[in-house]
Amino acid sequence: MATVAYEDLSPGRVIDLGRTVVDRDEMLAFARRFDPQPFHLDEDTPADSVLGGLCASGWFTASLWMRAYVDHLLADSTSLGSPGGKELSWLAPVRAGDELRFQLEVLSARRSRSRPEMGLVEMTGTAYRMTEDGGEQCVLRFTYTGLFGVAGKDSEESS
Amino acid sequence: MATVAYEDLSPGRVIDLGRTVVDRDEMLAFARRFDPQPFHLDEDTPADSVLGGLCASGWFTASLWMRAYVDHLLADSTSLGSPGGKELSWLAPVRAGDELRFQLEVLSARRSRSRPEMGLVEMTGTAYRMTEDGGEQCVLRFTYTGLFGVAGKDSEESS
Repeated sequence: MATVAYEDLSPGRVIDLGRTVVDRDEMLAFARRFDPQPFHLDEDTPADSVLGGLCASGWFTASLWMRAYVDHLLADSTSLGSPGGKELSWLAPVRAGDELRFQLEVLSARRSRSRPEMGLVEMTGTAYRMTEDGGEQCVLRFTYTGLFGVAGKDSEESS
Repeated sequence: MATVAYEDLSPGRVIDLGRTVVDRDEMLAFARRFDPQPFHLDEDTPADSVLGGLCASGWFTASLWMRAYVDHLLADSTSLGSPGGKELSWLAPVRAGDELRFQLEVLSARRSRSRPEMGLVEMTGTAYRMTEDGGEQCVLRFTYTGLFGVAGKDSEESS
């Protein structure tokens, strides 16, 4: 059984969440609906302007990361949702055509005292864009708490 | 001139960002594309399940808040973008048909040392759902830094 449970999310574990290429039309449609600022909408945004030209809404980048997280982990897990996080950083602009690589790292994990069948897992999700020189640049960092069901192998223990 | 500049965003200021009603079709379309977890997609999610039935992706709620922020403030401002924030909390589920009220509160503001023509404004954005008893429940809290151009009335001062 491949289901990811609380016990599988041990501190230090790094999980690959795959890659995607930023689609121009979808990026613009998202901006029109949710974040219609000129630098997210206007193809003629000058390259010497504040964000270096047309770029994605940070919420679009976060939403692409979320989809990768669902596809590569949550869809086959004991996830019970998330109350949110303590850091959401947009570190560099994302542009149409960028290839993004998504990742997850487990920071810490503890069993819930009030609900021992559940664990709280602190994680950092990241997105990296591939750069022209063959390197990577971190464009998104989200540190949050994920709630996961305990598989039950050691459900008598509670901390 | 109605443009909102750095000088207008003084600590303690509370800004109304309007209201919206959560559209079921759009909520589901967002979940299908960006957050296809059962409790965001399946109309038959039981009311006694973890999130109390079908509810919106937290990223959809955040994106609705963003649109309200653009419409009520950023569209007519000296905004220079945002590097992100230090808290993003999803405090309670949002459901199709909920009426949401959006708000912004300025926490602190300071001029950039390296770029005195710019100010850094720490703000908390919130979304409240109207409850059946006529009250409100906070469903989203986002504390972040907004970058705004200085209008220039006192541009000789820099801190």
